[in-house]
Amino acid sequence: MISEPRPIEIFIPEIKSLISMRNFNELKYVLSEINPIDLADGFERFLPEQQLLLIRLLKPNRAVEVFEELDIPQQQYIIQHLEDETLAPLMEGVPPEVTARLLRKMPARCTRKMSELLKREQFEGIQSSMEFPANSAGSLMQKDLIPLHPDMTVRSALERIQAASRVRKGSFINQLYVTNGGGKLMGGLSLQILIAAPADMKLRDLMTPVSFFKIPALMDQEEASKIFSKYKPDSAPVVDEDNRLVGVLNASDILEVIEEETTEDIQKLAGVEVLDKPYFQVPFREMIQKRATWLCILFFGESLTALAMGFFEGEIEKAVVLTLFIPLIISSGGNTGSQAATLIVRAMALREIQFSDWWKVLRRELISGLTLGVILGILGFLMIFVRAQFTPIYGVHYLLVAMTVSLSLMMVVLWGTLCGSLLPIGLKRAGLDPAVASAPFVATLVDVTGLVIYFLVGMIILRGTLL
Amino acid sequence: MISEPRPIEIFIPEIKSLISMRNFNELKYVLSEINPIDLADGFERFLPEQQLLLIRLLKPNRAVEVFEELDIPQQQYIIQHLEDETLAPLMEGVPPEVTARLLRKMPARCTRKMSELLKREQFEGIQSSMEFPANSAGSLMQKDLIPLHPDMTVRSALERIQAASRVRKGSFINQLYVTNGGGKLMGGLSLQILIAAPADMKLRDLMTPVSFFKIPALMDQEEASKIFSKYKPDSAPVVDEDNRLVGVLNASDILEVIEEETTEDIQKLAGVEVLDKPYFQVPFREMIQKRATWLCILFFGESLTALAMGFFEGEIEKAVVLTLFIPLIISSGGNTGSQAATLIVRAMALREIQFSDWWKVLRRELISGLTLGVILGILGFLMIFVRAQFTPIYGVHYLLVAMTVSLSLMMVVLWGTLCGSLLPIGLKRAGLDPAVASAPFVATLVDVTGLVIYFLVGMIILRGTLL
Repeated sequence: MISEPRPIEIFIPEIKSLISMRNFNELKYVLSEINPIDLADGFERFLPEQQLLLIRLLKPNRAVEVFEELDIPQQQYIIQHLEDETLAPLMEGVPPEVTARLLRKMPARCTRKMSELLKREQFEGIQSSMEFPANSAGSLMQKDLIPLHPDMTVRSALERIQAASRVRKGSFINQLYVTNGGGKLMGGLSLQILIAAPADMKLRDLMTPVSFFKIPALMDQEEASKIFSKYKPDSAPVVDEDNRLVGVLNASDILEVIEEETTEDIQKLAGVEVLDKPYFQVPFREMIQKRATWLCILFFGESLTALAMGFFEGEIEKAVVLTLFIPLIISSGGNTGSQAATLIVRAMALREIQFSDWWKVLRRELISGLTLGVILGILGFLMIFVRAQFTPIYGVHYLLVAMTVSLSLMMVVLWGTLCGSLLPIGLKRAGLDPAVASAPFVATLVDVTGLVIYFLVGMIILRGTLL
Repeated sequence: MISEPRPIEIFIPEIKSLISMRNFNELKYVLSEINPIDLADGFERFLPEQQLLLIRLLKPNRAVEVFEELDIPQQQYIIQHLEDETLAPLMEGVPPEVTARLLRKMPARCTRKMSELLKREQFEGIQSSMEFPANSAGSLMQKDLIPLHPDMTVRSALERIQAASRVRKGSFINQLYVTNGGGKLMGGLSLQILIAAPADMKLRDLMTPVSFFKIPALMDQEEASKIFSKYKPDSAPVVDEDNRLVGVLNASDILEVIEEETTEDIQKLAGVEVLDKPYFQVPFREMIQKRATWLCILFFGESLTALAMGFFEGEIEKAVVLTLFIPLIISSGGNTGSQAATLIVRAMALREIQFSDWWKVLRRELISGLTLGVILGILGFLMIFVRAQFTPIYGVHYLLVAMTVSLSLMMVVLWGTLCGSLLPIGLKRAGLDPAVASAPFVATLVDVTGLVIYFLVGMIILRGTLL
């Protein structure tokens, strides 16, 4: 009995030695002690033939759970190499939505073998799962429904559930949905309410209308996950365009979607194209490509700084001291810009901010940007002023230099804050993904414009002295 | 019947006009059509007396749902101003874990009023909720359990559940847990399995051991959420140090924790102290403080660039052309560093990377960094080479300048990648939060060191020509 996830590493040497000793009875016992998800985690550490052996030794329902968690190439290998006697019961246990996902990605040779093993009713379930596009609520939902009608009594509903439960042990039927003859969703009730109700009562009088948590089957999984995070239901019915019940989504199905979607947002915010796979599973070539794309775009953006500075080469030659503060000024603008962009992008993802709030955001960030700018401006002034007392490096006009740096900091920080906060809202308005306004993207934008601000401020303040 | 969350904005004018017309019957009907969570969302748009009126007009169980979703100050106001006849049933319906959270944060005057209204058994529930520290699994779990023993028959277990369900309608009892006389967790079964089993069967023969998904009550909610995201159970039992069952955590309770924790990670990654509240609810002063703290730390870090450049002032005066590429070089290092840091921090949060993987990460990022460095180095070389054909700005030694920039880019990008990837792992090893290795933090580190690399490379390549 454990509470922390048990690291599969501990079991691998034991399993391997039991395999080499061909002590299959002991091995079966050890396998029964390991969580199938942990076992799937460590599956790649075994040789391909060993993997087949483990699948054979697992109890059928455990084998299904392990199989479901494996990566597609591993699943393919098993389908191609496992004998039909073991494969057939395995395929029977895999839920249709998982099989549908597999069929979508497998070579024809494999799908043929699978189709031969699947029973007709399973095949129908799979085909109807494949109707829905990938990443839609329909592709994610569980389709194992028990048909209940409003005029059924509690007794006959319970009998129907009991009969269904004896056949399909794994499925999770707490929330029940009632449909009319045409399959349209009429209402819902929990199993708990059903068992506590008088046996002759009609479901019609027991059910409550499902007005809040219906999810259209074609809705994107990200949208569906947002409904779950807002209303926190344990499950929600999935309906087609005609309000016909087609499946159920559970909160536990959504957990995974939420993690996937946040990982995507985080990667976009850092200026990486979405990786889609865990870090170590991304092939090297793909990893480089997904990072290099944005790096190159940012590089070209940033190379405008060299162009901008070219215009001010004369000024730089006359006042080399100004160059010393270039990194400080542009990075302060970049940092405030990334902060603002990240806060706003996340708040938009959580629906804390809508487009209609842009004016409230502008007002708030204008004051924030000014305040942060004044703070950093004062710090910059003090830094130069204090250092100038100990070193002649900033020259006789150090007060003017300090003023230039300080004023530029204020303006660049304000500008960075405004760019960072308004760009994501503007992108969203234009129908684009606000997370494209990544921290490095905003930083690059602010770097180029920040330099121009700095040199223009310098030309005004230092005219007649240094310049 | 709707599927998209209904924006509360549509209802607000209608509700307000019904209030002013004192048409309370119609208002009751309108309120029954609105999801309590949406209503709570828009609650602050009503005057305080209007809020009290709405609570009075809602059906008791709806009023509880709205109340649960309100912010603490709004809850306090209601407790202080609502008459006891309405408040008492409201308080009865609020789950003990929510009341416990409220009691923790309220002034003594309010808690006294609440304690007077609460029944003795409720008070006990609340007290035992307050035993667990904030943000622990114990403070989040539902404590409404139905005691079942291994020697009970299916029939008597069902009777007990039926009796309990008639009293407490709202609670979610799908997963049932069986405990021995001392309250120790023996096993679990679903309500569905229970109703499908023969009436005389003992629970002992029906239950399965709960070996995988036990959560210690003192476990941090973030850890608990990781167990849920990995194993995706619909619910998990919560136990104390002696393996006694103390509550249940549902996947829907965890959705909120996952969002909170990812928001925290995202904010840290952007160099903002964790805000704890939705964007518009953070008081201005707090918002500035949480952003300014890191900005000032980064500012001092970044001011080292001015110091570093001071050392090379002589070189800068001789080769002003070098300064043109400073922003380009340091930001390229910063961008690759932020990419690497973000990827690694997120992969660590999802447990894709453990400390023991540091060597694999180092090897992978070393090659990634070299490849990305070569790509950007070549781009940099070409950019200078091509521009030099059209403008004399880079001088006669433009080829040497291009080589300096190109070589520096390679080294800085490699260095940025290594810092970004290894720093989070090192922080984790030192027992610190890897998300502190925020993108701006890594960028600042790489800016300072990148400048030194650039000037050193320049001194070597340009010695005898420009320098």
